[in-house]
Amino acid sequence: MSSLNQAIEFARSNHARYLSELKEIMAIPSVSTLPAHKADMQRAAEWLSNQLTGMGFKNVAVLPTGGHPVVYGELLNAPGKPTVLIYGHYDVQPADPLNEWVTPPFEPTVRGDNIYARGASDMKGQIHGALKALESWVKNGGVPVNIKVMVEGEEELGSPNLGAFIAQNRDKLKCDFMLNTDSGILRPDLPSIVYGLRGLAYFEIWVHAPQHDLHSGLFGGSIHNPAQALCELVAGMHDADGHITLPGFYDKVKVWSDEERAELARVPHSDDEWLKMTGVPKLYGEKGYTTLERLGTRPTLEVNGILSGFTGEGIKTVLPAKAMAKISMRLVPYQDPAQVEQQLKEYMQRNAPPTIRWEVKAMGTATPMLVERDTPGMKAAIAALKETFGVEPVFKLEGGTVPVVNMVKNQLGVDSVQLGFGLPDDNFHGPNEKLHLPNYYRGIETFIRFFDLIGR
Amino acid sequence: MSSLNQAIEFARSNHARYLSELKEIMAIPSVSTLPAHKADMQRAAEWLSNQLTGMGFKNVAVLPTGGHPVVYGELLNAPGKPTVLIYGHYDVQPADPLNEWVTPPFEPTVRGDNIYARGASDMKGQIHGALKALESWVKNGGVPVNIKVMVEGEEELGSPNLGAFIAQNRDKLKCDFMLNTDSGILRPDLPSIVYGLRGLAYFEIWVHAPQHDLHSGLFGGSIHNPAQALCELVAGMHDADGHITLPGFYDKVKVWSDEERAELARVPHSDDEWLKMTGVPKLYGEKGYTTLERLGTRPTLEVNGILSGFTGEGIKTVLPAKAMAKISMRLVPYQDPAQVEQQLKEYMQRNAPPTIRWEVKAMGTATPMLVERDTPGMKAAIAALKETFGVEPVFKLEGGTVPVVNMVKNQLGVDSVQLGFGLPDDNFHGPNEKLHLPNYYRGIETFIRFFDLIGR
Repeated sequence: MSSLNQAIEFARSNHARYLSELKEIMAIPSVSTLPAHKADMQRAAEWLSNQLTGMGFKNVAVLPTGGHPVVYGELLNAPGKPTVLIYGHYDVQPADPLNEWVTPPFEPTVRGDNIYARGASDMKGQIHGALKALESWVKNGGVPVNIKVMVEGEEELGSPNLGAFIAQNRDKLKCDFMLNTDSGILRPDLPSIVYGLRGLAYFEIWVHAPQHDLHSGLFGGSIHNPAQALCELVAGMHDADGHITLPGFYDKVKVWSDEERAELARVPHSDDEWLKMTGVPKLYGEKGYTTLERLGTRPTLEVNGILSGFTGEGIKTVLPAKAMAKISMRLVPYQDPAQVEQQLKEYMQRNAPPTIRWEVKAMGTATPMLVERDTPGMKAAIAALKETFGVEPVFKLEGGTVPVVNMVKNQLGVDSVQLGFGLPDDNFHGPNEKLHLPNYYRGIETFIRFFDLIGR
Repeated sequence: MSSLNQAIEFARSNHARYLSELKEIMAIPSVSTLPAHKADMQRAAEWLSNQLTGMGFKNVAVLPTGGHPVVYGELLNAPGKPTVLIYGHYDVQPADPLNEWVTPPFEPTVRGDNIYARGASDMKGQIHGALKALESWVKNGGVPVNIKVMVEGEEELGSPNLGAFIAQNRDKLKCDFMLNTDSGILRPDLPSIVYGLRGLAYFEIWVHAPQHDLHSGLFGGSIHNPAQALCELVAGMHDADGHITLPGFYDKVKVWSDEERAELARVPHSDDEWLKMTGVPKLYGEKGYTTLERLGTRPTLEVNGILSGFTGEGIKTVLPAKAMAKISMRLVPYQDPAQVEQQLKEYMQRNAPPTIRWEVKAMGTATPMLVERDTPGMKAAIAALKETFGVEPVFKLEGGTVPVVNMVKNQLGVDSVQLGFGLPDDNFHGPNEKLHLPNYYRGIETFIRFFDLIGR
């Protein structure tokens, strides 16, 4: 048996142990945005660093940053072969609304083919799978390439400290390319590979009117209600055709050729299934574009949260003093997050009425990316997917954002390969997040083949 | 010395005791909307019933309703004289946002001429002042009219159970008119009397789009964000001139004659002072009307609260499943709250897009009122104010809502006199609510004279 086949056989014979390890790491509530979970973040980081140490990694450390630490380790036993920097994150989104979970978000539970937990798919399962692929090689002749692992704890915050960390560790992180395991495929029977990622610009908009909350009967009618004013401003950010109205917002947006649009249309997609999966009564989006184009090639503007006044049970006849909306834009090539911030502020300057005061707070950004397809990393990923799944992977654009892809391009000068096994219906960021186990097992095998191909 | 003068002298010599009693009742957090304060509601009711018993009232009881109880008592020692039903409420608004209070809302604190506490002005100070006026008579020859007292615990909820209570106790509550002490005057040096009250229609609007929260990167652009859709619907409820756009909303609104508008314009009002008091950068309102008209003669539509998605610190790139707004309309003669509910639903039917689901929940109503001025009660109130303050009171329209005024008109067939001593800058419903003590003391004297005039 070849070492490749031995590595694959090893992986196949260890599913039960993998499941038990998955439960361990998924049970740690490593919610990066909530200060109460600081100790859990440390526990998750240590769990991962113990995995690396157990596999014989060198220089394993939980390295401090300006925020949550980065787990680092290296296994450089393949002289003359490429060095792959594996990226992942151990932090997860908050689990609210808690009452919508069938089983508690940090009590990982297997039901059918899935394991349910916050962070199951985004992305404890993904990074764990990549480590298990490495382990299969370690136990069967050694990893055929050089590996550096960097797992951060602030991806769900927009990776605010990772850029500085990479800049400060350029030599340590030197590599031929990055393997970003924070990714997914289209369906369990249809592998796909991402060649574009949307960027992000995230803001809080505050509207202030009276100095403090007032009685709506005594003052209502004479004062611009700040929640109403905020609604008016937010409503005006899209026109009737779903276009975003920020001044200059589309000026730099890449215009896709007919050929590119035709290729994108080959990605399997059904509006009916999308409707069913999301549960909306009717799809929405920018006029003149297909759903896939809306998700991949077009920028969006979303309200991630809005809050004003009294929102408890019952009635309170208050005229609130202030209102806040969290607004984020998904950006596409070649938009620039800094320019988008200016565009938002210009929109506010043009449209905010004189009856209120307003403020825009920038909360985080990521630049949108397009990835070359003919690099050794991309070619190996495509071949490994084809071999494991038995079908040609399709090329797709990712609607989400992976800030690290920008950072390694800027700081280390290398490209990234997006190779992960999340599924569109995994409920990332929502209740009942899951990891599809058969797909996760195939993911491990894909990673095993990927390292083999890179090392040849 | 006449008994009137004796009663007034008695009141003047008891200010220190009044203050200590005010602190007792204001320290009870009788927040009717919060189930956690159920026991506090009972304590506040018992505190008031003890006051009545102490003054020799008969049939004193804390009477059950479908919700919080009503405090009742009667003092019928003036045969042949009119019977006055005194109304007040012992419940208060929630105190949030707590961090904006200089001193805690339920630790009543005197600073300068004011005592600060939630419910100080709305309306523990008012009802206490009316009771102290009665006490002054009890201690000085007896109250010259017959008195029934009814203090409810659900005014801040829109008095959901008071109508049924009054209907079930018609005989007990029989009276010549109601004295509603939940009212105010324009300035400490300018008494005023209310002859119109706006009504209320309070709703929750829910917008649902996806079945659960989604990742804004993976789904954004293809789904109508429910917070955005709610903002669009709320924004559309006013046009650019501040008119409300619900179909038929103005059809029944009373058109005020030039004479009535001229009389209303005699109420002292300064837009500059209003601006300063509220702290807004610029006043807002319906085009074609003065601020006083906007506050008294015109209906309004306010957002009392709005909530969707992630509103904690930091960023969460969520596409929320749902969004909720609390919306209330202040109504004017001759609008009907039931018709307004239909108008809101029709607005939603016409304007809600097919990309979302929506729901309108009716939360509470009150019919708007106009009060006759030539009744014995109104004439006594006008004279008592003039005598105490030394100036002619002005007639004004109240922007707020007192559901009980409707109920006693409908169930007992009697009119109401609005006589209370809240001030426009008392911060009802907001943080740092206060009671202006000199005004409260003048209020007690006004009540003493009022009972004298009614009893003549």
